[in-house]
Amino acid sequence: MDKVRMGIIGIGNMGTVHIKNILDGKVPEMEVTAAADRADSRRSWAKENLPESVVIFEEGKDLIASGVCDGVLIAVPHYQHPELSIDAMNHGLHVMCEKPAGVYTKQVREMNEVALRSNIVFGMMFNQRTNCIYRKMHELVTGGELGTIKRVNWIVTDWYRTQSYYDSGSWRATWEGEGGGVLLNQCPHNLDLLQWICGMPSKIQASCHNGKWHDIEVEDDVTAYLEYANGATGVFITCTADAPGTNRLEITLEMGKLVCEDNKIVLYQLSENERIFCKTAKGGFDVPKCKVIEIITDGENEQHIGVLKSFAGKILRGTPLVAEGTEGINGLMLSNAMHLSGWLGQAVELPFDENLFLEELGKRRKESKKKEGTGTVFDTEGSY
Amino acid sequence: MDKVRMGIIGIGNMGTVHIKNILDGKVPEMEVTAAADRADSRRSWAKENLPESVVIFEEGKDLIASGVCDGVLIAVPHYQHPELSIDAMNHGLHVMCEKPAGVYTKQVREMNEVALRSNIVFGMMFNQRTNCIYRKMHELVTGGELGTIKRVNWIVTDWYRTQSYYDSGSWRATWEGEGGGVLLNQCPHNLDLLQWICGMPSKIQASCHNGKWHDIEVEDDVTAYLEYANGATGVFITCTADAPGTNRLEITLEMGKLVCEDNKIVLYQLSENERIFCKTAKGGFDVPKCKVIEIITDGENEQHIGVLKSFAGKILRGTPLVAEGTEGINGLMLSNAMHLSGWLGQAVELPFDENLFLEELGKRRKESKKKEGTGTVFDTEGSY
Repeated sequence: MDKVRMGIIGIGNMGTVHIKNILDGKVPEMEVTAAADRADSRRSWAKENLPESVVIFEEGKDLIASGVCDGVLIAVPHYQHPELSIDAMNHGLHVMCEKPAGVYTKQVREMNEVALRSNIVFGMMFNQRTNCIYRKMHELVTGGELGTIKRVNWIVTDWYRTQSYYDSGSWRATWEGEGGGVLLNQCPHNLDLLQWICGMPSKIQASCHNGKWHDIEVEDDVTAYLEYANGATGVFITCTADAPGTNRLEITLEMGKLVCEDNKIVLYQLSENERIFCKTAKGGFDVPKCKVIEIITDGENEQHIGVLKSFAGKILRGTPLVAEGTEGINGLMLSNAMHLSGWLGQAVELPFDENLFLEELGKRRKESKKKEGTGTVFDTEGSY
Repeated sequence: MDKVRMGIIGIGNMGTVHIKNILDGKVPEMEVTAAADRADSRRSWAKENLPESVVIFEEGKDLIASGVCDGVLIAVPHYQHPELSIDAMNHGLHVMCEKPAGVYTKQVREMNEVALRSNIVFGMMFNQRTNCIYRKMHELVTGGELGTIKRVNWIVTDWYRTQSYYDSGSWRATWEGEGGGVLLNQCPHNLDLLQWICGMPSKIQASCHNGKWHDIEVEDDVTAYLEYANGATGVFITCTADAPGTNRLEITLEMGKLVCEDNKIVLYQLSENERIFCKTAKGGFDVPKCKVIEIITDGENEQHIGVLKSFAGKILRGTPLVAEGTEGINGLMLSNAMHLSGWLGQAVELPFDENLFLEELGKRRKESKKKEGTGTVFDTEGSY
């Protein structure tokens, strides 16, 4: 095999981006051999716009069973991610899954178990992990030279969405269709990066506001407080109605502080460990000496293309993935814990009770209102 | 009267700063005629360093009863603020009280009632209100042109203190001596500014960590989540062990965002109200147009001297105070609510149960440990 034959399941906003990237030759070791979508309008679009060699299916499971693909890219509404991934894995197909890994961790845990038993490559579309800024943050924090994390504050309120965005898809921003709002649709990237850079917290207390700024039934405004096993604390603040929003990730460690904002990382590097300074300094108002350094990165930021290249590379040559599929559960655990904390109005310890989560989600799915989608496919350039 | 004759009660760190400012002629309409301190060492210092005309007392109440002052400046440990203020008011003396107004709102409410019944001037030492940056923030937010507040995030972790700071005073950082930690000692400024600029929240959920970074029994690390009656939310994050700390106040309003950091205010001004844009924009990923403006202030920042000048001005000519004494209760309500929320492990609605607060504080005072202070008076230049 010198090219991975890919089937794209779901050709809405994101699936269409992926299919175009591959057809444009941006992922040289990949070709599109099939596409599936349940919407007539999208299949018509596919027939008109894709090469004749691409086989079009209505159902993902038929695409999976067709034998015309080596791997699938799953870009359907979130609930179906684990189901279709498992089906593909059971057919021996490699799986690249869009984020989030699923809607609830119980379902994703099952997917991960199948993946570990199968002899296939399983990747998660965490394209933000290819961003030089976040790669560098990961390297600086996990490298250990800055010491232990003391605090992490991430204000990531730059996921602005209009009402017409929410009105575009019938599954969008409903408990039944999407299983959540900003935490499930926009924040999986940030929640994955958060755990990738800082590790998993042990306790979460969140306030999730449903339909606060938009006519939707799910949350569009969240403030979460985090506690880590080592005593570090943090906040994660997100919203789809702040204009202009902020994207500022600040991590304080024993040896200084990292501030990541406006595509720049500034390191405030201490000359000695604050924990030692605090205990030994003579003056009450003394502060540790600090050097301010703007961190230089390699500037590379391949995004979705980088994730797909690494996926093909892993299949063809065993080179590493950008993000292992099985890691998708971590960010989802964070969002599930935030939802659960908000629903219960109390702090939630991790790992949380997955059955209780499912039960609470179930209540909301039952009362979820059907809505009609306008079916618009937006130009997502620069918005994911 | 052409000069207000002042008695300074408490000549530790802050009292000494005030006395020097007045003696240096920086508050032309004020003179120091008396000083009081319970510590022998401070009275010896006063005898050696202050003009002979300044009468020295051991007890504040004796200074108040002496008849040598028109007004008093109260700079003793927090618990005694209301008690001494009330005594002075009852003697017909004008009162300038150091922050915080007291340790618990019940006590401060009584002080305010006496003040309102008395024919005296009552001011609170909220020197940060003289800062051009915060005056401008107050003006921009309360002016109304930017619309309603949607979010306020204040990360104010630049109150760095070493262990030797906490070891310097026997009353410092104890429940019995100070009634709290960073919320009572360092943050009264920020909490006052927060309510002055954004108004009072209606609900608070806080995590207060006691002795997390220092060998003290009170909190040195706090993360609080705030909800306002209009639906706005926010966080207030503070700590005395982050190095370097951050002081970043971000307020999002319907017409844009204000970011106050590094003694600069940046306004991100929208061309239209986000609430209208959200509902009318056609594109799902459309965002309101935004102009970035660095706000120019008048540059004036008189700090303590400005507060004292306004106090003298009010007494002599009826010109306005920087901060009315009766407003001191607001910031204290915020810190009391944060403490109470932390102690109970649950959200607290404002106004909270003041008796419950007192009861909970009482438990902690009862178990409070006596410690020996080193008695060091630090150079506080730039640290308050």
